[in-house]
Amino acid sequence: MNIKQNIQDSGQEETRARIVASARELFRQFGYAKTAMQDIARTSGMSAANLYRFYESKLAIGCAVAVAERTTLLAVCDAAVATAGPRVSDRLIALFRANIDTVRRKMKRTPMLFELDLAVAREHQKLRRELLDLIETRIVAILAGEAGPGSLANAAVKVRSRMILLASAPFILPWMLANEPFGDPRAMVEPIVRALVAGLDDGQSIPAPAARSPA
Amino acid sequence: MNIKQNIQDSGQEETRARIVASARELFRQFGYAKTAMQDIARTSGMSAANLYRFYESKLAIGCAVAVAERTTLLAVCDAAVATAGPRVSDRLIALFRANIDTVRRKMKRTPMLFELDLAVAREHQKLRRELLDLIETRIVAILAGEAGPGSLANAAVKVRSRMILLASAPFILPWMLANEPFGDPRAMVEPIVRALVAGLDDGQSIPAPAARSPA
Repeated sequence: MNIKQNIQDSGQEETRARIVASARELFRQFGYAKTAMQDIARTSGMSAANLYRFYESKLAIGCAVAVAERTTLLAVCDAAVATAGPRVSDRLIALFRANIDTVRRKMKRTPMLFELDLAVAREHQKLRRELLDLIETRIVAILAGEAGPGSLANAAVKVRSRMILLASAPFILPWMLANEPFGDPRAMVEPIVRALVAGLDDGQSIPAPAARSPA
Repeated sequence: MNIKQNIQDSGQEETRARIVASARELFRQFGYAKTAMQDIARTSGMSAANLYRFYESKLAIGCAVAVAERTTLLAVCDAAVATAGPRVSDRLIALFRANIDTVRRKMKRTPMLFELDLAVAREHQKLRRELLDLIETRIVAILAGEAGPGSLANAAVKVRSRMILLASAPFILPWMLANEPFGDPRAMVEPIVRALVAGLDDGQSIPAPAARSPA
């Protein structure tokens, strides 16, 4: 890729970011259903024809907005984990609580954008899976601690993190946070996490299996 | 209620059961959407006008079929628990595995009826909550063991069973069993249950708090 191409690409990226920001504001105020491509084009300062060169449909823009929102959500979660101290349980609790609190704030302050998340997740199973993958990556990182992905403890970390992810569905999935079929999920974060990481705590990550002694 | 009333009611119950059985068979073969009230009336041996005296809409019949299916599902789960031995963990594992296996069989053998479950749960949050309540009742019974609902241990049992219910959402909710967003849930039943009941096992139920010694 030459310099000219690079400049062109970064210009396109800027345009895309501008479109997503305009669309987010329209979706937030008027809702996804009541916003037309024409409206997004106008507030982005371009023709509808030009807008379609960047996004093939309103749904594609809806997905881009949802993905941008997810990036913000995960940044908040990462910041909470980073300040949670060294214990595995405390870091996991911080992760799930930050997710619950951020989603709840979104439900309250920007309900139209939260509705968009639900609609997009219904349409695109792929986005729902991506969210779970991104959370799982974070659980793995917390469990692995210093060990890192190449370590011997990798298999044990994978099994345990999948277990924690599965048991934490009501802390993660937007529709479960909206419907709370089990009562207040936030109150359950601590007991569930403590039960699932019992024996791993006091700052320990999952230990690598001891080297086999020579026979 | 007099005898005449009783006889009349039991006749009505029989008619309702006949309608539900006919509707189930039609839904199973042709699907909910392609079955008309007229078809249900004909296979139940009555006029459509008479059918409406028993059920106000096709959705009401759909709900009745889904509830009957749920009763069968829970009977299978209860039988599995009853033969699982005395340990709390083994009984809980039997409960969730029986649920997963029964739902999976249903998805495979009678997919149209499974679709009906999903559709009904979408329309009626109440039915989804009822399923969770019915499972929770069973978890409470397993945890309480001999202690029973009036015992001192009641509060501890309630907290713990809510925790287990919440962490087991992917073993219970039909759409999660259909989509498996976390991979194979069946493989995760045992490690999750064992982690959540650690310390309660060997046939022990949750102990009543010790009586406070006089000061």
